[in-house]
Amino acid sequence: MEYHEITPEDVQYLRKVTAPERVLYGDEIEYDYHHDELPLLGTHAPEVVVFVLTTEEVSAVMKYAYENTIPVTPRGAGTGLSGGAVPQYGGILLTTEKMNRILEWDLDTMTVLVEPGVLVMELDAAAEERDVFYPPEPGEKTASLGGNVMTNAGGMKAIGYGVTRRYVVDLECVLPDGRVMQFGSNVAKNTSGYDVKDLIIGSEGTLCIVTKIRLRVIHPPKVSYTLLVPYGSLEECLDTVPKFINSDLEPVAIEYISKAILDDAAYYLNKIMPHKTADTYMILMFNGGTTEDVERRCDAAAQLCLDNGAEDVFLCNTEETKDAVWSVRSAALEAEKVSTSDMDECDVVVPSNRIADFSHFADSLMEKYEIRISIFGHAGDGNMHIMLMRDDMDPEVFKERYEALMYELYDKASEMGGQVSGEHGIGHARVKYLEKQMGPEMVGLFRGIKAVFDEKNILNPGKVIKAYE
Amino acid sequence: MEYHEITPEDVQYLRKVTAPERVLYGDEIEYDYHHDELPLLGTHAPEVVVFVLTTEEVSAVMKYAYENTIPVTPRGAGTGLSGGAVPQYGGILLTTEKMNRILEWDLDTMTVLVEPGVLVMELDAAAEERDVFYPPEPGEKTASLGGNVMTNAGGMKAIGYGVTRRYVVDLECVLPDGRVMQFGSNVAKNTSGYDVKDLIIGSEGTLCIVTKIRLRVIHPPKVSYTLLVPYGSLEECLDTVPKFINSDLEPVAIEYISKAILDDAAYYLNKIMPHKTADTYMILMFNGGTTEDVERRCDAAAQLCLDNGAEDVFLCNTEETKDAVWSVRSAALEAEKVSTSDMDECDVVVPSNRIADFSHFADSLMEKYEIRISIFGHAGDGNMHIMLMRDDMDPEVFKERYEALMYELYDKASEMGGQVSGEHGIGHARVKYLEKQMGPEMVGLFRGIKAVFDEKNILNPGKVIKAYE
Repeated sequence: MEYHEITPEDVQYLRKVTAPERVLYGDEIEYDYHHDELPLLGTHAPEVVVFVLTTEEVSAVMKYAYENTIPVTPRGAGTGLSGGAVPQYGGILLTTEKMNRILEWDLDTMTVLVEPGVLVMELDAAAEERDVFYPPEPGEKTASLGGNVMTNAGGMKAIGYGVTRRYVVDLECVLPDGRVMQFGSNVAKNTSGYDVKDLIIGSEGTLCIVTKIRLRVIHPPKVSYTLLVPYGSLEECLDTVPKFINSDLEPVAIEYISKAILDDAAYYLNKIMPHKTADTYMILMFNGGTTEDVERRCDAAAQLCLDNGAEDVFLCNTEETKDAVWSVRSAALEAEKVSTSDMDECDVVVPSNRIADFSHFADSLMEKYEIRISIFGHAGDGNMHIMLMRDDMDPEVFKERYEALMYELYDKASEMGGQVSGEHGIGHARVKYLEKQMGPEMVGLFRGIKAVFDEKNILNPGKVIKAYE
Repeated sequence: MEYHEITPEDVQYLRKVTAPERVLYGDEIEYDYHHDELPLLGTHAPEVVVFVLTTEEVSAVMKYAYENTIPVTPRGAGTGLSGGAVPQYGGILLTTEKMNRILEWDLDTMTVLVEPGVLVMELDAAAEERDVFYPPEPGEKTASLGGNVMTNAGGMKAIGYGVTRRYVVDLECVLPDGRVMQFGSNVAKNTSGYDVKDLIIGSEGTLCIVTKIRLRVIHPPKVSYTLLVPYGSLEECLDTVPKFINSDLEPVAIEYISKAILDDAAYYLNKIMPHKTADTYMILMFNGGTTEDVERRCDAAAQLCLDNGAEDVFLCNTEETKDAVWSVRSAALEAEKVSTSDMDECDVVVPSNRIADFSHFADSLMEKYEIRISIFGHAGDGNMHIMLMRDDMDPEVFKERYEALMYELYDKASEMGGQVSGEHGIGHARVKYLEKQMGPEMVGLFRGIKAVFDEKNILNPGKVIKAYE
């Protein structure tokens, strides 16, 4: 595929169908738009950045790009960790960050209609005002909901509430040729033709651009308690996980974090933790309708932890103590980023009863490759964030080593029935690992599906699958 | 597409790759295999019926069909209501009814691996033995799980627990050319390439044949109470629904049924109902962890109903009374079937706050077309089953009238933001209505997706979309 190079005439046209001040060209483009949250994965300058405001603008831009074979990379808040919003082939970077209105609350059907640029924290705040609750809680609260839909964002409460997919009711999208289509509608059940909506969720902006999202909200839990559980070893901590999954205690979150990360994150946020000398911490959340019910389950959970080697159990039932624990957990990635020069991360997911084995395996690679590895994650759902730190290693040596290390991690995950990405997506940075794991038959299916939507391969080329065979 | 006609040589080959006694040809084929639960929708004889036992057999049959361009119609238990298992183009009827083993319980990850021919009631019974719970509850308990996956079956507790899709962890499938592929894996979160698994769920056997299904199970509710609520009018009953959706009482089911259907179904089952003189009944289910919690919510629900015009509220908290109410509700379709000569049904779904309006509209068509209409359904999720009864009307006149009536129903649903099918699927019988509602652009996408999997159009041709453009 030969892409058309942007000319001043193209810029003029794009300014005409949007607005002059919302189209940046050449030197006007800030470096921020060359990359997402992990610049180590590679940066690339867009030829032009377009800040869209409406579905009609997105449609007009795409129609023009389609007719002129210009690659278009959609971008939300730019908080991705796989390079999904990096315009590898130049062209237009189409950012939906200014499409950030909450359009309609329909509490009769318990749904909310939003534009893709609304941030998770903005929806959370607006929901709280109406005494409703949007359950998905990705670590990154400044991520956009469009980005969340396009990566099927997971987060910390997936075992209790499921991931983003469960809350997406319907989508308005613009296809690569500029057509506007609606996928799904505000109904609770549907088996009317192929489920294109779910195909689009998690497709990382390679099939179409989402311009409106209807999300389901629920009633907030009346009571929410958190347990912070110190363990003497990672083994004991993770071995407790299947016992929770196979209990009727129904935690909505089971997270784990090492002492080192806990220290880094507490220091980063200047928070005081109720305990900080153990090797590994499990963090559990229990939500429910009554204090009695939640207390009963917390008591049983505490006993279960103590029976399985926990050193102690700290009940956090005040806003202050809960906030301390969860803000520290949420800051883990940020805190680890500032602890090193460069880092890459692996967002692998395995069956929840294999997480201990996988964690050991990852640890063993630390010595083999002499790379510092930091692991935290969602113990309850088998999704780990394994951060590989460059520290003061030579960048070239680091790159070579971490790629080999990554292949070993993904091969092991595959062997255990796991997947390349639990929630961060493939972007361009994980394509080679995904293609290896999936094999040519699955990649062939993916290519076929991509071509149904985007036969000219202009929409986010090189993401999820390679741009060229 | 010209399909190959089955010859004795083909039969011989099919017997070789399966077993002689599991391949029926010509006159050996019973009439049961010409249709599903609604023969009115049209019957068609398969040329050959193959009872498969293993994935390898399915693969061998499909490879042969692919090479010889033979249409293949997959069939589960044959309980469909849209003609999805009717072999309209002859060829091979491939039935998975004998692939009916529960292969593995993995309670560490709370999943179960089944073959597609396992019936819903068989899984329910096996789950109960292990003190776990498979939440989807379609009315038809003798349906197969393969069929449930392929229609994304819904059922009575969708507002509380969601539909089949939520419980499908991974699928092993045979593609039209015989290749065996795995979609998804036993992980709780996944954003690793396109979500083909969810595309297959609800695809009615047109993209591939499912040969293994891993399903998620949960812990059963400790307490479950049912309320039977008589109302003087349908309006008052349905107007209460949004008040429940927008309350924090969290019913897991909100059903409604008319006096006439209640009488028919109670008579059909020889059950005595606690009340039977009201115009319309709402049936509510509340599940929870403690008796106190469930009782508190039932009390509040009863008050909410009484404040909104209910005549009375009957609490069913014994196995006997709960069984009476739910078995009568479950028997509604069967009871209505025996009340008439022939019937067709419309499984439309609208936003849950539009169900009263839609129900009125459907009622108004009864007079216009002089067709007896019987409505019951899932009030909480906007999914109605509208049965059109032929009674003693001339079959030709009935056909003409009910088709016109159906178009009116589907147009109205579309206008309200609804969909053609909530849970029964499109089969061949609803294709014309679906195509009208979706429009040529969406149908074009569907055709593109179909061709990625089945470019020779041999797998269940004519279902979901027309076999020919």
